[in-house]
Amino acid sequence: MKTHKILFLPHNQEITVPDGQTLIRAAMEAGVHINASCGGEGVCGKCRVIIEEGNVDEGITEKLNDDDLEKGYRLACKAIIRGDVTVRVPVESEVDASVLNMQRTARRTAQIVQPNFEDLKEQGLFIPPVEKIYLELPEPSVQDNLPDTSRLVSFLKLNHDEHRLVVSLPVIRQLPDIMRKDNFRVTATLVRPVQKGRKSHIIRIEPGDTTERNYAIAIDIGTTTIYGQLIDLKTGESLAEAADFNGQISYGEDVITRIVYAEKSGGLEKLHDVVVGTMNKIIKKIIRKARVERDEISSVTLAGNTTMTQLLLKVNPRYMRRSPYVPAATIYPPINAASLGLDVGEHAAALVYPQISSYVGGDIVAGVMGSGMYRNEELTLFMDIGTNAEIVIGNKDWLACAACSAGPAFEGGGIQFGMRAAKGAIEDFSINPLTLEPMNITIGNVRAKGICGSGLIIMVATMFEMGILDSQGKFNRDLDTSRIRQTDGIWEYVVVWQEDTQIDRDIVITEVDIENLIRAKGAIYSGCQTLLDEVGMDIDMVERIILAGGFGSYVDLEKSMTIGLLPEMDPDKITFIGNSSLMGARMSALSNHIRSDVTEVTRKMTNFELSETRSYMDHYVAALFLPHTDIAKFPKLKARLENRAQ
Amino acid sequence: MKTHKILFLPHNQEITVPDGQTLIRAAMEAGVHINASCGGEGVCGKCRVIIEEGNVDEGITEKLNDDDLEKGYRLACKAIIRGDVTVRVPVESEVDASVLNMQRTARRTAQIVQPNFEDLKEQGLFIPPVEKIYLELPEPSVQDNLPDTSRLVSFLKLNHDEHRLVVSLPVIRQLPDIMRKDNFRVTATLVRPVQKGRKSHIIRIEPGDTTERNYAIAIDIGTTTIYGQLIDLKTGESLAEAADFNGQISYGEDVITRIVYAEKSGGLEKLHDVVVGTMNKIIKKIIRKARVERDEISSVTLAGNTTMTQLLLKVNPRYMRRSPYVPAATIYPPINAASLGLDVGEHAAALVYPQISSYVGGDIVAGVMGSGMYRNEELTLFMDIGTNAEIVIGNKDWLACAACSAGPAFEGGGIQFGMRAAKGAIEDFSINPLTLEPMNITIGNVRAKGICGSGLIIMVATMFEMGILDSQGKFNRDLDTSRIRQTDGIWEYVVVWQEDTQIDRDIVITEVDIENLIRAKGAIYSGCQTLLDEVGMDIDMVERIILAGGFGSYVDLEKSMTIGLLPEMDPDKITFIGNSSLMGARMSALSNHIRSDVTEVTRKMTNFELSETRSYMDHYVAALFLPHTDIAKFPKLKARLENRAQ
Repeated sequence: MKTHKILFLPHNQEITVPDGQTLIRAAMEAGVHINASCGGEGVCGKCRVIIEEGNVDEGITEKLNDDDLEKGYRLACKAIIRGDVTVRVPVESEVDASVLNMQRTARRTAQIVQPNFEDLKEQGLFIPPVEKIYLELPEPSVQDNLPDTSRLVSFLKLNHDEHRLVVSLPVIRQLPDIMRKDNFRVTATLVRPVQKGRKSHIIRIEPGDTTERNYAIAIDIGTTTIYGQLIDLKTGESLAEAADFNGQISYGEDVITRIVYAEKSGGLEKLHDVVVGTMNKIIKKIIRKARVERDEISSVTLAGNTTMTQLLLKVNPRYMRRSPYVPAATIYPPINAASLGLDVGEHAAALVYPQISSYVGGDIVAGVMGSGMYRNEELTLFMDIGTNAEIVIGNKDWLACAACSAGPAFEGGGIQFGMRAAKGAIEDFSINPLTLEPMNITIGNVRAKGICGSGLIIMVATMFEMGILDSQGKFNRDLDTSRIRQTDGIWEYVVVWQEDTQIDRDIVITEVDIENLIRAKGAIYSGCQTLLDEVGMDIDMVERIILAGGFGSYVDLEKSMTIGLLPEMDPDKITFIGNSSLMGARMSALSNHIRSDVTEVTRKMTNFELSETRSYMDHYVAALFLPHTDIAKFPKLKARLENRAQ
Repeated sequence: MKTHKILFLPHNQEITVPDGQTLIRAAMEAGVHINASCGGEGVCGKCRVIIEEGNVDEGITEKLNDDDLEKGYRLACKAIIRGDVTVRVPVESEVDASVLNMQRTARRTAQIVQPNFEDLKEQGLFIPPVEKIYLELPEPSVQDNLPDTSRLVSFLKLNHDEHRLVVSLPVIRQLPDIMRKDNFRVTATLVRPVQKGRKSHIIRIEPGDTTERNYAIAIDIGTTTIYGQLIDLKTGESLAEAADFNGQISYGEDVITRIVYAEKSGGLEKLHDVVVGTMNKIIKKIIRKARVERDEISSVTLAGNTTMTQLLLKVNPRYMRRSPYVPAATIYPPINAASLGLDVGEHAAALVYPQISSYVGGDIVAGVMGSGMYRNEELTLFMDIGTNAEIVIGNKDWLACAACSAGPAFEGGGIQFGMRAAKGAIEDFSINPLTLEPMNITIGNVRAKGICGSGLIIMVATMFEMGILDSQGKFNRDLDTSRIRQTDGIWEYVVVWQEDTQIDRDIVITEVDIENLIRAKGAIYSGCQTLLDEVGMDIDMVERIILAGGFGSYVDLEKSMTIGLLPEMDPDKITFIGNSSLMGARMSALSNHIRSDVTEVTRKMTNFELSETRSYMDHYVAALFLPHTDIAKFPKLKARLENRAQ
C-alpha cells in the first residue's frame, strides 16, 4: 500500500498515512486538533489549513477565495493526500499554541488477528468433519455376495480404519443402484463423530470418484446480519461470500424482542421461516458465485448466538428470557440440513456450533477457539461489546464467562442523538481545550446526523481528560462557551450546530447520554471484575484482551481505557478477532479436530449469571464513575490527570 | 382337557383322544384304516363302524337304515366322541384281517416348543430395547442453570448409568415446555443401542410418570399374511393380536413376482404403500382391542423375509433376484416408525429384525434365536418348508444357512389337484393295502376339493411303503384296481370319485404330481446335505430338527422321513417353533439382550448359495428317489420295507 508522510505544524507531529486519505483524518490520527463542524462535507469551512510543502488533491470549495488559495489554504476535510505534505494548522493566538501539548492521543484501534487457516494444514488438522472417500469396492460374486451395505462398511473398516459406521436408510435405498453404476467404484461422504471412537455416519454415496468436488457452507447467523461463505473442502479456500440483513429484523431489533415474538402463536415458526429465507438467499448467491452445484455441498456449519440458534432450529426460546435463563440445549447432534428448510441437497449435514448458555452463544465460543486463549498460559479477557456484551476470562486451565446487559448505548441506543455506525454518524472527535470548539469526522464524510457508539466513547473520554467533564460525567458549569448549556434542566454540549447538520437541529451530547454510557461501560467492567473475583483474581492481572463483534473493530482503545470500559494495558496486547461467529463456522467446516475441541471447551467453560452473583452489584456501583471509583486501577490515566492538574 | 379312550377292534388298537373328536379322526390317528371317500361329510356312507361298548353322539344319516342302527352301526365321520368307546371296524374277509399288521403308523406332527417369555424375566433379560424411565430432575436455579437437555442428560448419567446419550432435535424442541409441566418430573423414553457401550437415543419426553403405560407392537410381515401383536412392555404380556392378508398379494403371490413388480416404475412405492396399509389396519385393530393410545406405543418391531423387509423400507430388491443375489442390507439402524408411514406416534422407533441374505430372512434368524440352537452343543437342523425353503444347520460353534428353491409343491402348487391347506383339502389319508380303497379326511370334514401339501406327503409315503409306488414314484402297473389308471398317457390314482367331491371331477394324484413332490423334497434334503458337506459332516449326525413356518405344524413326521424330506430320527427330537417371525419380533420388543444376540448370530451365520455350490447338483440328483438313492440313510424304513417284502 502506498503511504505518505504528513508533517503537521506548529505541532511538529509527523504521521504516515495511506494514499488517498483526507487531511482531516490524518490530523485526527496524529492527534492534531482542527476545528471542524460539518463532519467532513466541506460546508462549514472551518477546517482551513495551509499546505506549506508538497501538494494535495482537491480541498478547494467556495468557502475559500482566490486569495486564500494563493496563500495555500485548503479545507482539510476535502484535501486528498497524494504525496508527502507539510501542513500548517493556523492558530489564532499564542494561547492556542500553548495547549498543543494537551492534544488528544492518536486514535488507536485493535489490530485484527485471526487464525490462519493455512496453519491447519501444517498442523495436520485439516480433516473436515464431512469428508468424501473414494472406494474401489470388490465386485460381488457367488463366493462373496455380502449385502451391499456390508460390502461398503467392511471395505471402509479394512482399508480406511473406519470401525464404527452408521448407514442411514436413505443411503441404503440408493446404494444398490449407485454401486452398480460405475462397477462398484463409489465415493462415500462421511460425517465424522465429534468424539473419537464414536460412530461415523455415511450420508451420501455417489458413483465414481467425486472427491475433487466437496464443499461446505459456513454461516454466521447474526441478529442483524447473516454472513455466508462457500468453502472448498479440498483446498480449505473460501470461494465466495455474501451477506444480507436477517429477515427477522422486522419482528424485533434485538434478541429479547425476537424471543417475545416467538412466544406468540405461530411466532416461532414465522421467525424460523424468515431466517431460513435469508439464509437460502445467501446460499443461492454463493453457490452461483462459486460455480458449485447444490448437491456438492456436503455440510452447512452454523454459528450464532443462542437465540438465533434456537430460532433457526425451531426450538422455543421462551425460558431464556426468564430467570434462571435456561436454554433448551447448548450442544446439538448433526442435523439434516434440508430438514431445517435449507436449500441444499437431501444429504447435507448441518453442524451447529455449540453455545454456553442463554446469552453466551456460539459466536463467543468461536472467538475463544479462534483466539487460542483456551490453549495459552496468559490470563486473557475476551469481550464482545454490544447491547448484550459477552465476556470470557481464563486461560488453558480455566474459563469463566458471563453476559452483561450493557444496554444499547454502544450501538447509539438511549443516546439522544445516538445512531448506528452508518453514514453521517460522528465517529471521531477532538476538542480544542481553550475554545471548546469540536473537530468532528463522520462516517462517509458528510454532514452529521448523529453520534455512533465509538464516537460517543471518544467524546466522553476526550472531554473527561480535558476536565470538561468530571468523574461523575457532569459538565464543568464554569466554562465560557455557548456550546455548554442547559436545555429543559439538562446540561449538554453542542457537538454540531444546526446549520452544519443533516437534521436541521443542534446535535448535542447530554449528561443523560453520558450517564447511560457510564452505566453501559460499568456493566461490562464490573462483569469482568466479578468473574475474576469468583476465581480469586483481580482485573490488573489480565495480560491480554481479545475483542470481537462489529464494535470491537472501531473502538478507540486508549479512550476506552480512559472511560473505564477496558482495563488499562498496553494496546499491543489488545487484538480484534473479526467476525468470530463466521470464523467459528468456517473452522468447524474445515477441521474435525477443532470441532472436538469446541465441544470440550464448551463443557469446560463456567457460566455466571451476573445479575444473580452477589458481588456484581457492588462492582457495578463502583464502576459508575469515569473511569472508576478507584482511580488507582488506571495508573496511566491517573498520571495524565495529575499532570494536567499541575 | 377331557379325553376318552377308544378301543378299535379287531385291530385291538387303543388311543386316547380329546372330547368332541370324530371317530374317523381317532381311527386315522390310531392307524386304523376305514374306507372313506367323501372327506368326512357323511355322504359316501362308506365309513360304517359298530359301537360295541359306550356311546357316541350323532353319526346317524340316511345312509343307515333302522336295522343298521339297531345293530349299533354309525358313520365314523359323523360320530362325535363323548366317552370311552369300543368300536368294531367291519372287515369283509379273513384276508382283510390279515393285513391289519400292515396298517399305517399313527399320525405324528411336531410338538410346538416356543421360548417361554416368562423365563426372560427370571434370567434378567427382560429389558426392552425401548424403555421408559421416570426422572425427578432437580429444578433449575441461578446456581444451577444448566440447559434443559444437559439437565436431563447429566441426571441420566449420574443416576441411571446412561453415559452415552443422543437427544434428537424433535425431543429438544419439546423439552423446555414438557419439563416445566410437572415441576421437572418427566418420563424419558430411551432406545438402547444394539451393542453395549454405544449410544442410547432419547426419543420422547413426557410430563410426570407414565412408565406404567409403555407398549410395543410386534409385526410379522409375511408374504401372504401379516400378524401383529400388542405387547405390554411393563409385564411382557401380549394384550391383543390380529392378522390380515398382506395387501401385496394382488401384485404377486410370491416374493419373486413382487420383486418383478417392484422393478416397474412406481412399483416399489406401490408395494410399500400397500403393505403399510395392511399393517396400519392391524395396528388400529390391536390398539383398539388393547385399549392403548396410539402415542403409548414406543416401538414397532418388525420381522419378515428379506424381500418383505426391503419392500417395507422402500429399498429396491432388484438385485436380489439376479446372481449373485445381493440384498441392499441385512442390518438396519433403528428407524422412525412414522417416517415409514406407520400409524403410530411421531416418536416410536421401528426396530427391524436382521436378515442373513436375500433368501434367508428375519423369520429364520428369529427361529434360530427362539430355538436356542445357537447356544446348544447338539447339531441342529432348522427348516422352514415352503416354496422357498430355508435351512440352517449348526450349533453354538458354527451356523450355516441356505435357501432352497423347492417349488410350490408343498403348498399344493404344480399338483393337478393341489390346493392350499384350506377347507376341503384332503389333509389325511390311509389306504387299504388289499382293496386299495382310500380313507380321506379333509380340512373341515367336507367333501374334497383337492389335496394340500401335508396330505400329499401322507399319500405318497403311504403308497410307497405299501408298494403301490416304487422308489422312482411310479405306480405298480400290476395292481387290480380301477383307481389306478392312465389318462392321456399319465398314470394316476383316483383319490376321490367324482360323486364324492365338491368339484364334480375325479380327484387324482398323478405320477407328474409325485415327480414334483420328489423334486421339492429332493431340493431340501440335498440342501441340508450340501451345507453339512461344506463343513465336513454328514446328515446322520443331525441330532435335532426344528420346524418353522405354517407347513411345519401340519407335516407328518414319519411320513416325511418315508419320502426322504426329513432325515430319519426319533420324532421326539423334532419340534415346531410356530410363527418364528412374529416370535422374533416379540423377542426383540422384550429384550435388548436378545436383540444384541441376534445381531451377533446374524454376523456369524454363513450363507451358501446352493445353486452355485458345486456338490449341490450331485446331492440333488441322488435325492430324486423315494426316499433316496442310498436307502441306507433311512435304516428304519429300510427295515420296514424288507419286512414287508418277506
